Amino acid sequence: MERINYTANIIQYIPFFFVIWSDDLLSVSEVTVVRRIIESDPTLSEEEKKLLYSWLNKEQPPKTKVIKSWAELISLSGIKLIESDTYPLSSFSRKLAAINNGNSPINENLAEIEINLGIQPNHYHHLFEVEVVTEKTSDYYIANEISNLLRGEHAQQLEELGELLSHPLFNWEVNRDLDDFRINVLNQVQFLGKKGIGAIAYPKAYGGRDNMELYASIFEQLMFVDGSLTIKFGVQFGLFGGSVQKLGTKKHHDRYLKDIGNARLLGCFAMTETGHGSNVRGIKTTATYNPENDTITIHTPGKNDNKEYIGNALHGTMATVFAQLIVNGKNRGVHAILVPLRDNKNNTLPGITIVDSGYKLGLNGVDNGKIWFNQVEVPRENLLNKYGDIQADGSYHSDIKNPNKRFFTMLGTLVGGRICVAKGALGGAKMALAIAVKYALNRRQFNDNIKIQEDLIMDYPSHQLRLTPAIAKCYVYHATLEEVMRQYSDDTISDKRKIESQVAALKSTITWFSNETIQECREACGGKGYLLENRIPDLKNDVDIFTTFEGDNTVLLQLAAKGILSDFNSELNSGGFTAVLKLISAQIKDKMVAINPAYSNKVDKDHLYNPKFHQHAFKFRTRRLTYSLAMRIKDYIKKGVPSYQAFLKVQTHLLALGKAYSCELAYSTFVNSTDSIEDLKYQELFRKLGILFALHEIREDASWFLEQGYIGGTKSKAIRQRVERLSTELRPHIEVLVDGFGIPDHCMTATIAS
Amino acid sequence: MERINYTANIIQYIPFFFVIWSDDLLSVSEVTVVRRIIESDPTLSEEEKKLLYSWLNKEQPPKTKVIKSWAELISLSGIKLIESDTYPLSSFSRKLAAINNGNSPINENLAEIEINLGIQPNHYHHLFEVEVVTEKTSDYYIANEISNLLRGEHAQQLEELGELLSHPLFNWEVNRDLDDFRINVLNQVQFLGKKGIGAIAYPKAYGGRDNMELYASIFEQLMFVDGSLTIKFGVQFGLFGGSVQKLGTKKHHDRYLKDIGNARLLGCFAMTETGHGSNVRGIKTTATYNPENDTITIHTPGKNDNKEYIGNALHGTMATVFAQLIVNGKNRGVHAILVPLRDNKNNTLPGITIVDSGYKLGLNGVDNGKIWFNQVEVPRENLLNKYGDIQADGSYHSDIKNPNKRFFTMLGTLVGGRICVAKGALGGAKMALAIAVKYALNRRQFNDNIKIQEDLIMDYPSHQLRLTPAIAKCYVYHATLEEVMRQYSDDTISDKRKIESQVAALKSTITWFSNETIQECREACGGKGYLLENRIPDLKNDVDIFTTFEGDNTVLLQLAAKGILSDFNSELNSGGFTAVLKLISAQIKDKMVAINPAYSNKVDKDHLYNPKFHQHAFKFRTRRLTYSLAMRIKDYIKKGVPSYQAFLKVQTHLLALGKAYSCELAYSTFVNSTDSIEDLKYQELFRKLGILFALHEIREDASWFLEQGYIGGTKSKAIRQRVERLSTELRPHIEVLVDGFGIPDHCMTATIAS
Repeated sequence: MERINYTANIIQYIPFFFVIWSDDLLSVSEVTVVRRIIESDPTLSEEEKKLLYSWLNKEQPPKTKVIKSWAELISLSGIKLIESDTYPLSSFSRKLAAINNGNSPINENLAEIEINLGIQPNHYHHLFEVEVVTEKTSDYYIANEISNLLRGEHAQQLEELGELLSHPLFNWEVNRDLDDFRINVLNQVQFLGKKGIGAIAYPKAYGGRDNMELYASIFEQLMFVDGSLTIKFGVQFGLFGGSVQKLGTKKHHDRYLKDIGNARLLGCFAMTETGHGSNVRGIKTTATYNPENDTITIHTPGKNDNKEYIGNALHGTMATVFAQLIVNGKNRGVHAILVPLRDNKNNTLPGITIVDSGYKLGLNGVDNGKIWFNQVEVPRENLLNKYGDIQADGSYHSDIKNPNKRFFTMLGTLVGGRICVAKGALGGAKMALAIAVKYALNRRQFNDNIKIQEDLIMDYPSHQLRLTPAIAKCYVYHATLEEVMRQYSDDTISDKRKIESQVAALKSTITWFSNETIQECREACGGKGYLLENRIPDLKNDVDIFTTFEGDNTVLLQLAAKGILSDFNSELNSGGFTAVLKLISAQIKDKMVAINPAYSNKVDKDHLYNPKFHQHAFKFRTRRLTYSLAMRIKDYIKKGVPSYQAFLKVQTHLLALGKAYSCELAYSTFVNSTDSIEDLKYQELFRKLGILFALHEIREDASWFLEQGYIGGTKSKAIRQRVERLSTELRPHIEVLVDGFGIPDHCMTATIAS
Repeated sequence: MERINYTANIIQYIPFFFVIWSDDLLSVSEVTVVRRIIESDPTLSEEEKKLLYSWLNKEQPPKTKVIKSWAELISLSGIKLIESDTYPLSSFSRKLAAINNGNSPINENLAEIEINLGIQPNHYHHLFEVEVVTEKTSDYYIANEISNLLRGEHAQQLEELGELLSHPLFNWEVNRDLDDFRINVLNQVQFLGKKGIGAIAYPKAYGGRDNMELYASIFEQLMFVDGSLTIKFGVQFGLFGGSVQKLGTKKHHDRYLKDIGNARLLGCFAMTETGHGSNVRGIKTTATYNPENDTITIHTPGKNDNKEYIGNALHGTMATVFAQLIVNGKNRGVHAILVPLRDNKNNTLPGITIVDSGYKLGLNGVDNGKIWFNQVEVPRENLLNKYGDIQADGSYHSDIKNPNKRFFTMLGTLVGGRICVAKGALGGAKMALAIAVKYALNRRQFNDNIKIQEDLIMDYPSHQLRLTPAIAKCYVYHATLEEVMRQYSDDTISDKRKIESQVAALKSTITWFSNETIQECREACGGKGYLLENRIPDLKNDVDIFTTFEGDNTVLLQLAAKGILSDFNSELNSGGFTAVLKLISAQIKDKMVAINPAYSNKVDKDHLYNPKFHQHAFKFRTRRLTYSLAMRIKDYIKKGVPSYQAFLKVQTHLLALGKAYSCELAYSTFVNSTDSIEDLKYQELFRKLGILFALHEIREDASWFLEQGYIGGTKSKAIRQRVERLSTELRPHIEVLVDGFGIPDHCMTATIAS
């Protein structure tokens, strides 16, 4: 091999050029950056600059043998690469120059290349056949700062909750026996009730803090302790208590809310029936008003009409029962009625039959059961009568005349529960990721022949791609759910129909994401991830059902899509629907623009990293799907296809729209929330997470964008490469990113995460 | 609306034209079919033919109001649609003609359209606003015939096994306690041992039947009983027994094989160490030969060097221990040595420490443990010495001089276990699908206003798309694994390296597929799928780890890809590798053809359903990925990037190649096996399953095919539509398809599947 003699000035640049060209890393805008830095380097002679410029030509890259000579110059140097140096590649370069041709002055320009090209140690520490002093985690960002950003105004209260949860009652242990586990979780719920945590969303008059947002954040935090605790807590305070709070009136609040909040009155939320899961409007349980003694009879008419999967069924002494309300022989639709289940000795009351649901895949600390009612009489006052009442004269009255609208208004009050479910699932994903990342920062497998240590599995590109985009998504979804909860709790927004559609879409997307992520983490931890002591198994089994309860994901996505089609303000399937479809399709067609080929093949980094590009892509997708969906339905209906059937025929299209909408919403919410971060250093980090989220999402649906001609093949490939590279760039900060989730230390009991 | 008066002859065709045009169902080849049928219809006048032809023009489809008038003619008829009629649409049409304008003779042509267009009742039963007498399942195919096709020559033996498994010992029940569960599974394994089932793969001289293929089929069947039973059975007879059979010599066989086969000698397969899961070559346990007393000392040197996840660890009295064999101070690489663990009173022997692995996500009936060896001496004869021996004079000898080759030869004998793992996972997927399908054929949710009954969830397109492609894939993978096992067991194929690569790829793909499928089934069954009594939870938790054990999927895919790169006959990373890469890339480049735009946008049904198209697509993908991968690696190496690093850089590319290869292999194997089915009726069914598999696979990776320009946007959309339509077309046969898996009735204990 020919030995080329470079000046010390040039040698300082060589490790950079080697990194650049070994990987063909340069985009056009990056060439510009490097060129500018060389230009302004006062230590270089014109001759030297000319040589360096000649190595910047993408059309005519340096010859392979030249690149190879750089590799040899580096590997023969005997210099150690110290990853913990502030600018490791720059300091390596300076040492290389020093031992070669002299002692150059400190050259700030080098560090600038390192920063501007986003070159991270793990981009090159394998490239150089030299000894590497590795750094597991960079201390550039502080986990606590990040977690404060996530917690926002609840930081203090969540900190206090964390301390409360360090009580031995909450210690994690393997609990395989149904009865033991349930008792333990019951004790935990009662403890939190006593401490005032359960009542947080209730009015201050009833021991609460009137703070639904904080309640939702607490719900998520409980996932770090245990899924069963989280769900039983949610059933007692959120579903049962929430139904009394939101569907009941002052008389119910005065009588029950305080005792519910401190968990002295345990209750159920009895909506789902064996025969009717997703189709709540079709439930069969009846609540018939008896004018002769001013009571309501609750009854289970048929074999499959019992309530099922009802949480707290074994411990609850009362239930909010959803039933068809029949007054004077007329069915007034689904209403909620409080029905006592057990006496004070905990015996079930006459007419009530409760059967244990038995062992489940997860959440075995929650006592689910089936409930039958055989002509059970309760006083008229037990009707939760905010939206529909039986008056003293025995007549039915509701301020909402349209029964459909009444039904959806009642159900709408439960949307908060769906946000909590999404937050809980996300909490599970965060915890699994934290465990998997910490394991990957300890676990070593395989190595290069020349190295003594095997590599950390976190340094494998496939492992980075497995975990890093999921971490970015957790950040995006976290911000989105915070914002949606803020709007849901905002009483100045009276029409919540849009938020309902949003929550329906987000709940589906996020619970599916969480399940996939936990599964990925299980596999990323290998056999260790299969052991109960490492917590991932329970997270996996507990979060699994989040895709089904509080609304089956497939059903919810269709609900969301129908909301979009009706522009969030019309009843679907009603007479005016075809008109709405026409309107929608006309509106959107106006705004649809043809995609310029130059745009669909733009692969420059600045463009690919620009949130405007991502937002445009997501908006384009939602619009196009809405338009084509509206057109298809209209077309079917025009041909005489019944509308029920028309909707069946476009079912997969509806699902795609629901997902697309959720993605657009999540990203735009995140971009807005990132803009408001004051500390620019952290803003930049969050922005990068957002970019990774967006590119990964586009990548996941690349076939659709390609089909539409929105992106070309070259751009699609470039996006894939950027996803991989961003995952690598974030590697030094990955531990801080999972620590930023703010999981209390005492909850991180997984052996492999210690 | 204008009332159009058609002749009875025309009216007979109207329901068909309504189905066709309401959904824009016609491809060019289908137009030809319908045209031909009309042409040859002797009952039609020239005038009538002309009218019908005019409705066949895709450029000028019938006007919307005409189609609507057809819809009204149908819905006002008052005729019932009887799905169980042989040709339901034809008989409906005849009745429609009869009540309108007269009594036409039986027109065989109509049925021909029904067959040729693949119109299934569920394509139209919602379209018509008439009363539908629904049919849950068509009896056109017989489940037993299908299951005999799957079982091939083992049908009789598997039938007998099924009867054996009906013994009460194998009754399924919830078993939450580790000790109880393990004892139960131990009894099951011993029962099967006594009955001669464990020894089936061993030579006849040792009580076996010399039938590895049958053994693998039995392994799959055991999954229908319980995952823990399957795995403990596999550890005892496959791994422990298999290691003695394949790594040992006659002295070991004579002494142990019979007792292993009848489960009197229980043993472990101690390979994996805490510190070394995937990197078997790097294990640290030592086996040092002591010439002074002709023994071998087994020793665990460091903290993380213990064996882990070892099945049978609590019940086993002996273990095949993998260790670095050191003879005269020289490390001869990994060898297997038989080490007694316990005395006949079941106490662990001196120097042996065994610790229970505790509760796991699944497979809790398997007693996994960690094992430490503290200077444990065993006689020299305990070395399983088929591939490497210590001779009487204390010197090491092996017929395989190259230590790498020796290592891979030893490991290669374990490939049979990987096939079993894939088969077992597939069995889990089949069972979950059978449960989910049976549930979906009973469960009703939502309905049209005019109907009394709600719809079966199996009739929802999204539900069909969820389950049907997965069922098709089970058929494809089943045939593939049967064939691979046949080749693996074929002693006339001496060089098994290609099969090893194939198995590595298939094991990954199939175990991942199985996990995704079981998850899909869990969600498809809603809350019911979450109850232990419905079996899906255990299938899910048991099959989960199949992605990790017997080779982590990510590692195996890379192994497979490296096999392809080295053309299955060279050592990777060795000196000759660059030469191989050069050769490969040159060879493939020769064969690469540019894709004709007419081809990439061909959307005709005949083309899309043609296996030649699918095989071409899969082959194209494997080749292209191989070529670009070889080019990338070559390029890195030329630039001086160390080869270890070069492989890291292309890691995700390697994974993609591994998957692509597996898909190509599975499909071509299935196509071949389908060709050999003699009964053409079933051959046609299997062919359709293959088409669904292939189009679904192309669809899943559509972004790649689009990026490459192999398919255009129009074709990509057409493929998506075909996947949906095929899933619907198979709906009438879906129950027969899952019954065809041959799961014994007594194993189908899920409450929701009864």
